[in-house]
Amino acid sequence: MYTLYYSPGTASLAVHWMLIHLGVPFSLDLVDLKANAQRSPRYLAINPSGFVPALVVDGKAYAECAALLMLLAERHPQAGLEPPRGAPERAEYLQWFFYLANTVQPAFRAWFYPDEIAGTANNEATKTHARSKIEACFTRLDDAFADGRPCLAGDRLSAVDFLATMLARWSRNMPRPATRFAHLLPYIDRMRSLPSLQEVHAREGLTDWITPAPA
Amino acid sequence: MYTLYYSPGTASLAVHWMLIHLGVPFSLDLVDLKANAQRSPRYLAINPSGFVPALVVDGKAYAECAALLMLLAERHPQAGLEPPRGAPERAEYLQWFFYLANTVQPAFRAWFYPDEIAGTANNEATKTHARSKIEACFTRLDDAFADGRPCLAGDRLSAVDFLATMLARWSRNMPRPATRFAHLLPYIDRMRSLPSLQEVHAREGLTDWITPAPA
Repeated sequence: MYTLYYSPGTASLAVHWMLIHLGVPFSLDLVDLKANAQRSPRYLAINPSGFVPALVVDGKAYAECAALLMLLAERHPQAGLEPPRGAPERAEYLQWFFYLANTVQPAFRAWFYPDEIAGTANNEATKTHARSKIEACFTRLDDAFADGRPCLAGDRLSAVDFLATMLARWSRNMPRPATRFAHLLPYIDRMRSLPSLQEVHAREGLTDWITPAPA
Repeated sequence: MYTLYYSPGTASLAVHWMLIHLGVPFSLDLVDLKANAQRSPRYLAINPSGFVPALVVDGKAYAECAALLMLLAERHPQAGLEPPRGAPERAEYLQWFFYLANTVQPAFRAWFYPDEIAGTANNEATKTHARSKIEACFTRLDDAFADGRPCLAGDRLSAVDFLATMLARWSRNMPRPATRFAHLLPYIDRMRSLPSLQEVHAREGLTDWITPAPA
């Protein structure tokens, strides 16, 4: 039994999605970001970084969206959400996980919270740079999918697709969202057709982005 | 047989260190950052991100320092550089790996290359914010070590210590380096006493930081 600390549409979405996809029992604990609850002493005792998600596993709370996805894939091997050790896809899986976590995700942080990066006075400059970085990242991902792979780490759905799809979603209101990249759109549409992604959108009350592009 | 694309003292250091620590055969290919070789067509074909390190594994190149550390730990299980699946330390291991990769490492990127973040005109503001973030990260790590753990993920040396130590090293010329944190200094000194870390410093021609603080 897991407990997920979450807020709709944030970095907890991918973990919530995977819990639903795995079909494992879990409870939810809403962290009210509008009330700044992620900075409350109660929540900081759970995750000192003050971010969602946090996931209670065997009675102890852990943070970092990407780490939680990787952990859940390991703990539920029957779901086949990670390439086996020694397979060439394993190196791809790890590489993309860290590329998304340390290049793409920080660029989105800069886009959504530019004041944290260089102060409020420089918000526009920070956002301009963040946008350019995000588009370069999607170009890089688009190039990867140009080889016809159905999923990011190869032939099979894996935990890293949950992270990639969530980050693609975050770009939906940007000038050039992920869905505008030729090889990313069919991938995103395949992900959006997954019942578990539709279900997490419904449960979190998210109505935009989930409908695939008309054929 | 591995081939590591590297440049002394950069993000390739942790991977180089681990290859030496594992005692596995590898060759080195120097990427001359002063000549901007990381942006050459030859290197971009190896790592389209244009960063070191890249590691050739079974004939194919992969990037991302943290991913390579995790991959090497998996490929050489006899070295015991990762907590077993299912152990509580496993969740810590994954959490810290992604915390270092997506919070600490990007803050160092902003410190060393502020022009990439919000443009050259805003370098000082970017560096001020990056410094504050890096110090907050070291405070967080210092708090973790306050429980007396010898290594970041628990009792045993693991791949995540290679990343944490490299990032601590990067702070050596900052106003408040990692060695100024009460619980981090003994940890860093334990790491600096490892023959493999001394060896990689020698091989990369790095002479500062490696000597532990006088008792």
